Amino acid sequence: MFFKVKTTEEVLGLVQGFAPVGEEIVPLDKAFGRVLRKDIISPEDLPGFPRTSVDGYAIRAKDSFGAAESLPALLEIAGEVGMGQVPSMTVAAGQAVKISTGGMVPNGADGVVMVEYCHLMDQTTVEVSRAISPQENVIQPDDDFKKGAAVLRKGWKLRSQDVGVLAGLGVTEVTVHRKPRVAIISTGDEVIPVQEKPKPGQVRDINTYTLSAFCTEKGAEPVPLGLCRDDFEKLRNMLLKGLETADTVWISGGSSVGTRDLTLKVFESIEGTELLVHGISISPGKPTIVARKGATAVFGLPGHTASAMVVAEVFLAPFLARLGGETTFGERVQNKVSAKLSRNIESASGRDDFIRVRLIQKDGEWIAEPIFGKSGLISTLVEADGLLRIDRNTEGLYQGQEVEVMKFKEA
Amino acid sequence: MFFKVKTTEEVLGLVQGFAPVGEEIVPLDKAFGRVLRKDIISPEDLPGFPRTSVDGYAIRAKDSFGAAESLPALLEIAGEVGMGQVPSMTVAAGQAVKISTGGMVPNGADGVVMVEYCHLMDQTTVEVSRAISPQENVIQPDDDFKKGAAVLRKGWKLRSQDVGVLAGLGVTEVTVHRKPRVAIISTGDEVIPVQEKPKPGQVRDINTYTLSAFCTEKGAEPVPLGLCRDDFEKLRNMLLKGLETADTVWISGGSSVGTRDLTLKVFESIEGTELLVHGISISPGKPTIVARKGATAVFGLPGHTASAMVVAEVFLAPFLARLGGETTFGERVQNKVSAKLSRNIESASGRDDFIRVRLIQKDGEWIAEPIFGKSGLISTLVEADGLLRIDRNTEGLYQGQEVEVMKFKEA
Repeated sequence: MFFKVKTTEEVLGLVQGFAPVGEEIVPLDKAFGRVLRKDIISPEDLPGFPRTSVDGYAIRAKDSFGAAESLPALLEIAGEVGMGQVPSMTVAAGQAVKISTGGMVPNGADGVVMVEYCHLMDQTTVEVSRAISPQENVIQPDDDFKKGAAVLRKGWKLRSQDVGVLAGLGVTEVTVHRKPRVAIISTGDEVIPVQEKPKPGQVRDINTYTLSAFCTEKGAEPVPLGLCRDDFEKLRNMLLKGLETADTVWISGGSSVGTRDLTLKVFESIEGTELLVHGISISPGKPTIVARKGATAVFGLPGHTASAMVVAEVFLAPFLARLGGETTFGERVQNKVSAKLSRNIESASGRDDFIRVRLIQKDGEWIAEPIFGKSGLISTLVEADGLLRIDRNTEGLYQGQEVEVMKFKEA
Repeated sequence: MFFKVKTTEEVLGLVQGFAPVGEEIVPLDKAFGRVLRKDIISPEDLPGFPRTSVDGYAIRAKDSFGAAESLPALLEIAGEVGMGQVPSMTVAAGQAVKISTGGMVPNGADGVVMVEYCHLMDQTTVEVSRAISPQENVIQPDDDFKKGAAVLRKGWKLRSQDVGVLAGLGVTEVTVHRKPRVAIISTGDEVIPVQEKPKPGQVRDINTYTLSAFCTEKGAEPVPLGLCRDDFEKLRNMLLKGLETADTVWISGGSSVGTRDLTLKVFESIEGTELLVHGISISPGKPTIVARKGATAVFGLPGHTASAMVVAEVFLAPFLARLGGETTFGERVQNKVSAKLSRNIESASGRDDFIRVRLIQKDGEWIAEPIFGKSGLISTLVEADGLLRIDRNTEGLYQGQEVEVMKFKEA
C-alpha cells in the first residue's frame, strides 16, 4: 500500500478531479455567499438614463465656458427635475434646471454644475461661477453596465456588493450551485457524545463539531451522522448511508492502525470503491485516506482534532470549493499573510510540515510565532491564527525569515 | 451645523460609545460565528486521564534505557488496552502493554514506545529497539486544559476549532450575544422595488440588498423595512418602527440636499434624538448622518451604493462588532494586506480618501491598482477587492509605494 502515500500537491490535484454539485435557484435576499452557476449578463443598460451624480443645475456646458468667480454666467432657471421623473422640459441655451443627485438629466442639457458653484440671484436667475466640461457630473445610460455585458462570472462567490449589482439589474432569483452536503461520521470506541460525562479512558466527540463548523464556514452543509463504534458492520452501514445522502463522506478517527485498517476494510467491502490515497506525506495528518465511490469522495481523517483540522484547512477547503463550483478559490479564499518568523524551526525532510502559528502585530509587521505542544492537544489550535507550511525539501526555517502564513478564516 | 462634521477617528470613537446587545443561549451546533458573552472556564481537566498520542507499547521508560537497533530490550507482553477502557492491568518492570492512539496509559507505565520501534518476537515477547524518556508520547490528564483555566475569553467570535474545544469540555449550550438587529430603510422617490422595471429616471433598490448582505456577513440580522418615499410622515413612521424593532436603524438615500434635510427634520421631530454627526470628512461618504435616540444609533447613509458601502466598511463594520459584543475586532476582523501601489494617486487634503483598489498578485507581491470611475457607479465596487485609505494629511501616494489595503471580506 505504500505506493498510495501521496504528496500535498498530488492530493490537491486529485481533489480537483471531482465534479461540482448541481444547481438550485435562490431568491436574491438569500444569495449572499452563494456561488454563481451561470454568467450574469446585463439584460439592460444601467442606469438606463443620463443621471446626475451631484446636486446642482443641469445646463448646456457651453453656457458655462469662461465662467469664474469674478465673471459668473447668468442663466435663466427653467424649472426643476423631480426625482424619479422624466423631465418635462428641454434645456435651451442660456437656461438652467435644478436637479438633485440621482435625477435624470433633461434633454438639451449636457452637464450639471454643482450647487456649490451656483448662486441664486432671484427666483428665475442663477449665477454660475465655474465652467464645466460637456458630460461633467453626468452618468451615461450605459456607464455602469452595457446591455449584454458580462457582469459576474460563473464560479464567483457573491459578496455584498455583488448582490447589490444583481438587485440593480433586476435579478430577483439567482441560479447558484447548491451547497455541498457533507456526511460526517465520528469513529472510535473511546469517543462518547458531548452530553455525556467521560469515564477515564473516554473523550467527548469533538470532530463532529469542528468538522460541521468548518463546513458551515466554507458554505457547505454538514450532515452529522453521529458516532460509530469500531465495528465493521456499523461503520459499513453508516458509510453507505452517507454515500446515499451526501456529496462526500468524512470519517474521522482513523489515527490508530486498528481503526485505519477497519476503515480500509469497509472501503474494500463496498463494490466500486477505489482507494486513491493511503497516507499523505505531511505532518500532522499523515494517516489520511481518500477513496472514491463513483463520483463521491470519501475521506478517512485522523482522529486527533488538531491533525484533522490541518487536513481540513489544507485539503478539504479547496475540495469543498471545487464541489461548490467556486472557480476563483485559489485567488480569493486562501488568506495568506506575510510574516517574520520569531524563531528557528527544524523540520524533517521528506514531508511537508504544517506548523500552527500565532500572528502578532509588532511595529507594523506581522510576526509568526510557532506554537509547539504535544501532538493531539486541541488547545494549540485555539491559540493558533494560522498554519505555516515547511516544504518537504526544506530542512528548516530561520528566525527573522519572511514566511507566508495560511490564516484561519475568521468566523 | 458645520461643527458636526467629524473626522474618521472621531466617528470611529463615537460608534464605540454604544452598548453591546444582550445575550441568548444557543446549542453548540449553532455556536459557530457567535460571540461569547462570558469567559469559558474549563470545568474539568482535559483529557482527564493519561493518554497516548501514538500506537505502540506502554512500558516503564527505564526498561528501554540503552535500547538500540543493535541491542534491543526484550519485554514481556502483559496484555492490550481496550479503547475507551480503564486498563485492568498494571505494567510491571520488564513488561509492555499494547496500546492504540488515544488509549489510556495503564498504571505502572510512564511512557509509550511507538510501534515502529517494536518488533514482535512471539505472542508474549516484544523487542524494543529505541529508548524513550519518561512521559514520552503521553498526554498528561491536564495537558490540554486544567480545571479552572480560562479557555476562551468573552467577546471572542467562535471559529471551528473553538467550537471543538467547547465540545471537548462538554459545553452543550453557549451563552452568546444575540445578533444585533439592523432595521434598513431605503429612501428616494426615484427608487423602485427590485421586481419592477424602472422607467427612465427610476432605479431599483440596491441598498436594501447590499446593506442586508453586509449585515449577514458581519453576523448581524438585517430587518429590511422596505422603500420609503421622500415624505416626512412616511419616513418618520418607518423610523419609529425601526427604533421599536431593531438595535440600530440605517436609512440610505440621503445624498441629495433635499433628502438629507428631510432625514434631519425627521430626526428633530422625534423627542430625545441627538444629532451626533452631520457629515464625515471622507470621500466618498461625506453626507453621512449619525444620530442617537436613547441607546440606539441611527445612521443616515449616502444613497449612492458605492458611497454607502464605503461608509459600511469603514464605520458600520466596527459598529456592528461593538453592538455584537466582539472585543477583538481591531485585531482580527479587519483584513489588511500590504501591497505596492501601481500608480500615483492625488488626494485632496482635509479629508480621508477611500480609494477602491483591485489586488493583483505579481511575482509574489500584491499590487494595488486603483479603480477610477465616476462617483455613483456600482460596477467599480464589483471590480474592487478592497479600499485604500489616503489620510487627510497626505496629498497623495506614489507609484511603487507600500500601502495597506482594507480587504473586503470574502463571502
